[in-house]
Amino acid sequence: MKNNSLKEIAQKISEVKSILLFPHVNLDGDALGSCVALCKAFRNLNKETWILLEDQIPANLCFLDSGYCTWDEDKIADPDICMCVDCGSEDRFEKRRAKFNSGKLKICIDHHETTEFKWDYNYIDPDEAATGQIVFELLKVLEIKPDKEIGEAIFAATTTDTGNYQYSNTQKKSHLITAELYDWGIDSNSVSIEIYENVRPEKMIMKNKAMETLKMLKGGKGALVYVTQQMLNMTGAVMDEAEGLSQDLRSIAGVEYAAVLKEYEDEKIRVSLRAKSKGNVSEIARRLGGGGHQKAAGCTIYKPMAEAVKLVEDELIRGIEELDEK
Amino acid sequence: MKNNSLKEIAQKISEVKSILLFPHVNLDGDALGSCVALCKAFRNLNKETWILLEDQIPANLCFLDSGYCTWDEDKIADPDICMCVDCGSEDRFEKRRAKFNSGKLKICIDHHETTEFKWDYNYIDPDEAATGQIVFELLKVLEIKPDKEIGEAIFAATTTDTGNYQYSNTQKKSHLITAELYDWGIDSNSVSIEIYENVRPEKMIMKNKAMETLKMLKGGKGALVYVTQQMLNMTGAVMDEAEGLSQDLRSIAGVEYAAVLKEYEDEKIRVSLRAKSKGNVSEIARRLGGGGHQKAAGCTIYKPMAEAVKLVEDELIRGIEELDEK
Repeated sequence: MKNNSLKEIAQKISEVKSILLFPHVNLDGDALGSCVALCKAFRNLNKETWILLEDQIPANLCFLDSGYCTWDEDKIADPDICMCVDCGSEDRFEKRRAKFNSGKLKICIDHHETTEFKWDYNYIDPDEAATGQIVFELLKVLEIKPDKEIGEAIFAATTTDTGNYQYSNTQKKSHLITAELYDWGIDSNSVSIEIYENVRPEKMIMKNKAMETLKMLKGGKGALVYVTQQMLNMTGAVMDEAEGLSQDLRSIAGVEYAAVLKEYEDEKIRVSLRAKSKGNVSEIARRLGGGGHQKAAGCTIYKPMAEAVKLVEDELIRGIEELDEK
Repeated sequence: MKNNSLKEIAQKISEVKSILLFPHVNLDGDALGSCVALCKAFRNLNKETWILLEDQIPANLCFLDSGYCTWDEDKIADPDICMCVDCGSEDRFEKRRAKFNSGKLKICIDHHETTEFKWDYNYIDPDEAATGQIVFELLKVLEIKPDKEIGEAIFAATTTDTGNYQYSNTQKKSHLITAELYDWGIDSNSVSIEIYENVRPEKMIMKNKAMETLKMLKGGKGALVYVTQQMLNMTGAVMDEAEGLSQDLRSIAGVEYAAVLKEYEDEKIRVSLRAKSKGNVSEIARRLGGGGHQKAAGCTIYKPMAEAVKLVEDELIRGIEELDEK
């Protein structure tokens, strides 16, 4: 299968009256930013447009939604176009799949290499650092008027999916597009502050408490921390806010394997496992009764924290030893 | 006073045989990256060139120095040009000031707004997000051949001084220059890993200790932490590694002013001050006897830590009150 052209897709868009946008579950900056940019641009073209969601918007992305998102499937009864954005497979919008399939025309805009060409029109380009970059190109084809809010949504999409232009997917093009967005009037600093400088003090203090439990294993190749219910009670943080800890551990020089143990209930410990470069945590997770990808996996251990820590430590050490033998 | 043109400066460079480069103390990515880019470019033009340092290179920036840095003032006995880079005032290269003044011609390349036009040739542009951007322009005037290593040094300068293109100083131009560096062959991901995912565990633990001193001021609009020599001794970290703390504080929701106090000696406390959006820390720094930019400034207080903390707290509170009145 091959891509339709953005011109073909723009042509279809110009012909219709209503468009419903479908970002993936576990909303991120690229999915929501891309949808917001499309939504405002389509509305400016006098299309009835909404972004249909099935989960909550993460707190640090709420600034993007000034009346574009809905959880109401009936907002557009009979959409001319349903467009899945930053995803293509129905399991990425499972609760909304029936609505998606009710669209007279179904279009996919995505940059994930695992996405299949299965809808009426598809534009899937894994070479693009962010779906937001494809959206930028599409809006150029549609000859939309440069707009600060649309530009900031595209900037949010690009800056999050490239890890602030640090990840290996970052391209010359990512910088060229961002440069052009300045002509649209974007305030990149205020967007960055919304996304990254909006950490609750409770979270900061909880993460600090967790880092006090840091244990380095096998000469620094493994790193482990844990978060207890008591830490949450002491600090007023919630468990979701332990999110960034595994990335913090991975950023330590020499660390190949990182584990964060989160006590959801007394004997219910969710474990996030991360590998930096050579390691494979999916195997470690499997041995602990879980699963996942090579670089990011997890499991749940139904034991008290101290026992869970011991189990994970042992498996990390085993994993490091196996890596050393290779 | 006004700037010389980069063309005039390039002309002077082309006429000489030896150039000694002077980045500021408390080396950062912009100072060292800019100097490395200049050093390699000047050597490619067959100039004898060295970067003269008076302090250590921070661990995460060591990758930049492949034989460009020296601590030996006699490396070039009688330099034709001494060039201060990312600084202009002698107190930013205090131990090297005599050597600097021994240069037959003294040139300043900088982007700090507090820097004065006091040397033979000056190019000081506070509108530039990084001195690395001025270096890029100068190298274009010198018509140097695109070079991966020079490009990565300029990338390091730009990405660090713009906070990965997040700070308010980030410009369209920052992205356009970075985009062009991809044509020079830069590997932006490997540079980013060197700078940001290479954290010594000692640093991680020290930062954690420092965060235990977190004090929130005026309902969360100010945040302050301090780092003592004792913390360094306990953790094995060095003071340079306290660098990222001010950014961590600034990332807390609601924080407008952040201060990190670093005890270099018993009664010698260096203070890093940061503002998030509306604030201006250069004024606060000035009141404490220092200086800097609106969003990033600093000072040194020659008092015991407890007194220094009190002084900084008072000035932060005053700054917040003034902001509230606006």
